[in-house]
Amino acid sequence: MRAEIIVTGSELLTGGTIDTNSAFLADELLELGIETAFKTAVGDNDKDLEDAFKRARERCEIMVVTGGLGPTEDDITRRVLARILKKRLILSEDALRSIQAVFAAKGRVHPAASDRQALIPAGARMLRNPVGVAPGFFLQEEKKLVAVLPGVPAEMRAMYREELRPVLEEYRGKDLFICRKILHTCGLTESRVNGLLEEVLRQKQPTVGLSAGEGQVDVRILARDRTAARALRSAEKTETAVRKKLGDAVFGVNGQTLEDIMGALLIQRTLTLAVAESCTGGMIGSRITNIAGSSEYFERGVVTYSNEAKTELLGVPAELIERRGAVSREVATAMALGIRERAGTDLGLAVTGIAGPGGGTPEKPVGLVYLALAWERGKKVDEHRFLGTRDQVRQRTAQAALDMVRRYLIA
Amino acid sequence: MRAEIIVTGSELLTGGTIDTNSAFLADELLELGIETAFKTAVGDNDKDLEDAFKRARERCEIMVVTGGLGPTEDDITRRVLARILKKRLILSEDALRSIQAVFAAKGRVHPAASDRQALIPAGARMLRNPVGVAPGFFLQEEKKLVAVLPGVPAEMRAMYREELRPVLEEYRGKDLFICRKILHTCGLTESRVNGLLEEVLRQKQPTVGLSAGEGQVDVRILARDRTAARALRSAEKTETAVRKKLGDAVFGVNGQTLEDIMGALLIQRTLTLAVAESCTGGMIGSRITNIAGSSEYFERGVVTYSNEAKTELLGVPAELIERRGAVSREVATAMALGIRERAGTDLGLAVTGIAGPGGGTPEKPVGLVYLALAWERGKKVDEHRFLGTRDQVRQRTAQAALDMVRRYLIA
Repeated sequence: MRAEIIVTGSELLTGGTIDTNSAFLADELLELGIETAFKTAVGDNDKDLEDAFKRARERCEIMVVTGGLGPTEDDITRRVLARILKKRLILSEDALRSIQAVFAAKGRVHPAASDRQALIPAGARMLRNPVGVAPGFFLQEEKKLVAVLPGVPAEMRAMYREELRPVLEEYRGKDLFICRKILHTCGLTESRVNGLLEEVLRQKQPTVGLSAGEGQVDVRILARDRTAARALRSAEKTETAVRKKLGDAVFGVNGQTLEDIMGALLIQRTLTLAVAESCTGGMIGSRITNIAGSSEYFERGVVTYSNEAKTELLGVPAELIERRGAVSREVATAMALGIRERAGTDLGLAVTGIAGPGGGTPEKPVGLVYLALAWERGKKVDEHRFLGTRDQVRQRTAQAALDMVRRYLIA
Repeated sequence: MRAEIIVTGSELLTGGTIDTNSAFLADELLELGIETAFKTAVGDNDKDLEDAFKRARERCEIMVVTGGLGPTEDDITRRVLARILKKRLILSEDALRSIQAVFAAKGRVHPAASDRQALIPAGARMLRNPVGVAPGFFLQEEKKLVAVLPGVPAEMRAMYREELRPVLEEYRGKDLFICRKILHTCGLTESRVNGLLEEVLRQKQPTVGLSAGEGQVDVRILARDRTAARALRSAEKTETAVRKKLGDAVFGVNGQTLEDIMGALLIQRTLTLAVAESCTGGMIGSRITNIAGSSEYFERGVVTYSNEAKTELLGVPAELIERRGAVSREVATAMALGIRERAGTDLGLAVTGIAGPGGGTPEKPVGLVYLALAWERGKKVDEHRFLGTRDQVRQRTAQAALDMVRRYLIA
């Protein structure tokens, strides 16, 4: 059972507005075992809307449309949809009453233009709008289902959850269950993960796919089965196979971040951390403190952008910076030892590197980064050479730095 | 001249990943006078991709595809596209050389699997990847243009700007000119901007629209005309009207960030800055150092997450923290004075606040933030009450902090 999500509105096609409705809907549909095959964004243009609606009806069982339900001339969704479904638009008494009730609740007379919002195709049923004016509707015919929701995200979400979801649960029947697991990895390239998982990636059930972000590769497992228990078992079996191949590179599941995991490990072991950053400029501290409750383990950070700051705040000898350069194995180590000692924490993490685009030399190119970690009885320093823009080098550095702490904690 | 943007990748259809590529491309195309009629997201599925590609070719002159160019089995874009274009895939010597060069630069042997990335349809021309491995390509035939870019946003953007944009400029011809100005504002809500610009927002030519981000509202002006000069004049006239209404709230144009503007002002006045952060955890330093060359004015940052760090690194009296609380006007001011003095910079910026979700009280609720700025002959402290999630409060705080420095510098 496959769905097409169609988001309408010219503002989605001029770059100004990023569509978040379709990601929400795709996620919700998947939870019901309904796969989204296509997402289409189309402007408030009669002919284009018609083309999009027709196409969706041909290729998918379910079509969910958002937007174009307002009271203005631009709002043509209902008209175009009625035409391709070969239905008249009729005034829904239910819809009219619900519109009037919204205005009444605000102590206002409802404007005549809003009556248009009570028009729905013959045979359709209204979907109540729990938080706004425009009602939606759905229509089921020839085993195909069409549903139309408002474009305002909060209204769309409320209407989906309270009104459309029960309709879809009924529609999909009870013979399909989905279990989804996303495993997050760090420290391996996409090609490497692909190589290690070659076999699993070819299997048909559960399906396995990869997606890559900055310094992170995700493995997505999707199992379908006749019962929830069977789908779960099947997903878990594949998860075990993937984990066996990827080992420690898997750091979390289903949306967990490196800072989530690192934070949980620090709490579990009652350890504290302080950070000294150079090229990342505060990005590592910012990520660590994204986690509510991070004050339990994160004591402080310093952004030692200048050489003087490295000496004053971390005790890195000026002579060492002079001799080895600010971006060097030795300075990274001295920074980690310095922040640990001065903050009085269990762990000290330090980063120094060349984010670019300027500042590189043949011996020390843009993307060269040293990460150092100091703990009570030891220290470690890693060299990386990252590719990409200034922002990518910085993001990959932050990712690798958090992963370095995580790997230390699970070793 | 109309375009369809097709973003590929199953991760875009399972709710896990929000597509930002298509908004970027729609925006860029519009700048060339090319309207995006449809945006389609489709999974890594042979039949669906074929359907999407065929349909786009029927209904639009230009098709821009992102994703599916990687070295893995999932990456089927080039194969499906070659089939519907009725072309063989051939190994591009240019592409192969560029892939080898990327691995060589890292001192690594290129993996055999990556050779597959050098395959492009016969008749296509390679688009170089300035920041990654996978090359893209484009093909022009029967007056229609197809271009394929990588899915990784940074690679896609760099390839678009350096390689595809010149091709499209050539292709679109010379009879329609667009002038677009996006004015970025900080410090006013969207409703307030809407109220101030009511009249301008109603005009038909140039069109004016608003879009809102965290702590920022953008005013988008789009003028079309027969000559570049006429489009420019018309856009500038509207820009003047908008600036008159919004005054100092306008901080930049066309993608400039607060950190760009603040950095340029600091350089112009040869002033230096140091930052002390609490609830933002390094986010302000991270934004400042996003700018290449920020070492000219950014000396250091400290993330004083614990009270001890505020005392040790900034000299904030423990007694003051005890008496007024870490989130207070007095502590913010002491932090700004402390970082300025210890770093020896011209300006000291400090932030303390309650990002939530925990830690709020009736007197000091979640979202309460104090920003303080110290300079040679004075100081200033602002109180804000931000709404939203932890992440939103932090982002709005960082935005307001950078804006505070900007407003000081232009006062």
